[in-house]
Amino acid sequence: MEQVFKGVEAVYQLKSQGKTEVWPHVAYDFIPEEGVMDIKSGYVKEMQLHGLKMLNSFPLNSEKGISTFNGMMMVFDSNTGIPLGVMDASYITCMRTGAAGAIGAKILARENSRNLLILGTGNQALYQIAATILLMPKINRVRIASPRNKDKELKFVTSIVGQIKEEFGIDVTETIQFEAVENLKEAVGDSDVIITITRSKSPIIQKEWVKKGTHFSCVGADMEGKQEIDPELFIGARIFVDDIPQCMKVGELEIPIKMGIVTEFDIVGEIGSVIEGEVTGRSSDEEITIYDTTGVALLDLITAKVAIDLAKEKGLGTFIEI
Amino acid sequence: MEQVFKGVEAVYQLKSQGKTEVWPHVAYDFIPEEGVMDIKSGYVKEMQLHGLKMLNSFPLNSEKGISTFNGMMMVFDSNTGIPLGVMDASYITCMRTGAAGAIGAKILARENSRNLLILGTGNQALYQIAATILLMPKINRVRIASPRNKDKELKFVTSIVGQIKEEFGIDVTETIQFEAVENLKEAVGDSDVIITITRSKSPIIQKEWVKKGTHFSCVGADMEGKQEIDPELFIGARIFVDDIPQCMKVGELEIPIKMGIVTEFDIVGEIGSVIEGEVTGRSSDEEITIYDTTGVALLDLITAKVAIDLAKEKGLGTFIEI
Repeated sequence: MEQVFKGVEAVYQLKSQGKTEVWPHVAYDFIPEEGVMDIKSGYVKEMQLHGLKMLNSFPLNSEKGISTFNGMMMVFDSNTGIPLGVMDASYITCMRTGAAGAIGAKILARENSRNLLILGTGNQALYQIAATILLMPKINRVRIASPRNKDKELKFVTSIVGQIKEEFGIDVTETIQFEAVENLKEAVGDSDVIITITRSKSPIIQKEWVKKGTHFSCVGADMEGKQEIDPELFIGARIFVDDIPQCMKVGELEIPIKMGIVTEFDIVGEIGSVIEGEVTGRSSDEEITIYDTTGVALLDLITAKVAIDLAKEKGLGTFIEI
Repeated sequence: MEQVFKGVEAVYQLKSQGKTEVWPHVAYDFIPEEGVMDIKSGYVKEMQLHGLKMLNSFPLNSEKGISTFNGMMMVFDSNTGIPLGVMDASYITCMRTGAAGAIGAKILARENSRNLLILGTGNQALYQIAATILLMPKINRVRIASPRNKDKELKFVTSIVGQIKEEFGIDVTETIQFEAVENLKEAVGDSDVIITITRSKSPIIQKEWVKKGTHFSCVGADMEGKQEIDPELFIGARIFVDDIPQCMKVGELEIPIKMGIVTEFDIVGEIGSVIEGEVTGRSSDEEITIYDTTGVALLDLITAKVAIDLAKEKGLGTFIEI
């Protein structure tokens, strides 16, 4: 995860310097199957990496006892077009998405943030939590909310310490308190950092619940119609994104923009410009900051490269003659 | 190759019945590297297959002694989004492109065609020849022209019988005469079927060289600016395509349409409609027929499925737990 942080930050910076290409997004809804597929592709010039990821999300798979989230990605050397590797995309996506949400929080949240709230208990929640506590060691209380699925919430909270230990080798038994959320309004009002990572298509968090100085990393909304927080929260907030056109089209920003609550000019900038020092991140302890991240293929490419290099180093994976 | 023919014909028919989806094409030029990449993707509904192919063409690789044409493709089960397989894309592309050019010739050329001319001696020429002689057993003379690279032409002609035997297990020593073309004008004037498969960006074959009743399968032009035959040839010809919008945008039809020589209404139909029997193919022995094929991902998907099924049957390939 440490290497993924470095890679993702580097790519965000290259993107803000215009040294990357995000190629057109392709998506499709499988109607009777209730599935969605999307293809994200791009090119990181400085690193001479290009490639793509195809992800399929088929929620009805859970009834069949098979994974709901499947895909693959491929990475090429942009000097020659030779393949560097192909791999399962769901783990790469979880890692880079965890890093993205956490980097937004580390950069934009108040420095003394201690209370983290995670909205969502799907595949990606573990990665959001692990990445954020790694980057923000002052966090000592993590609340977990799945208001539409209380059973899953309890199960998740019971297992999270074990999962973090197993997947990331970190023991947080003594340092962090994990709690299921009973009253979402109260939990929101008492949180410094809120990360949203659900499939929701309507706002779950209301503006009046939120205290001054809260930071939001809005990670779940990455397709048209998805939405997790009250559009009114964008009014007066300091707004950052990973990719301006993509967030306006399919991110948490989509609905507020369509409603006319905010416009492109209310976006302070891309996260890469903040990392670059070109744009100021948070400017006071009182303001609400929102980081809208929809995910760009560039993050997958660099994360896949980290995986390929580590696999080579550790003698894992399969080499194929072409 | 026999199974690829069946698959490609079936997919052409499904396409003309509206039972397929061709998703937006993504392409990019790597300027200093002089490379090109493109992503083709799609969905064959009846067969519940979807997926994509990324191909990289880097001609400068030949100076480095490495393959110029590299890529990978992935195929998924559209009921669940689970991967069915991932494989090198260049062989699949050669097989399905060979089948496409040959099917166009079999369906549209005069029934008594005996003389085949292949323009081009790149990676794909072998597959065009093998597929065409398999589908059109009356062909007994194959001329091969690479007017801009005479050395390659001679080398190719010397090795072609051996290559066909090695790759396809067919011995054509006694049945087919292969010749290098000395005078392109004369060879064109004496050919029943002409298949063009070069990277050319300007016309190589002139209208006045062509005899009545000739069939063209134009295979090489599949990106903006590519062109192999005289745009004037389209006047009065009976024109067929694999995909109407794609051929108009990036096929051999691109330039004649931009020049105003022909319009969309001059296209008789997609090849699938001819196979379906909805549209008449050739209507006289005198007319010139042109099949413009740019290649759709659907052909790659079905060809990849053939490869996956054969690999399973023969115990080849690598199975991976996901």
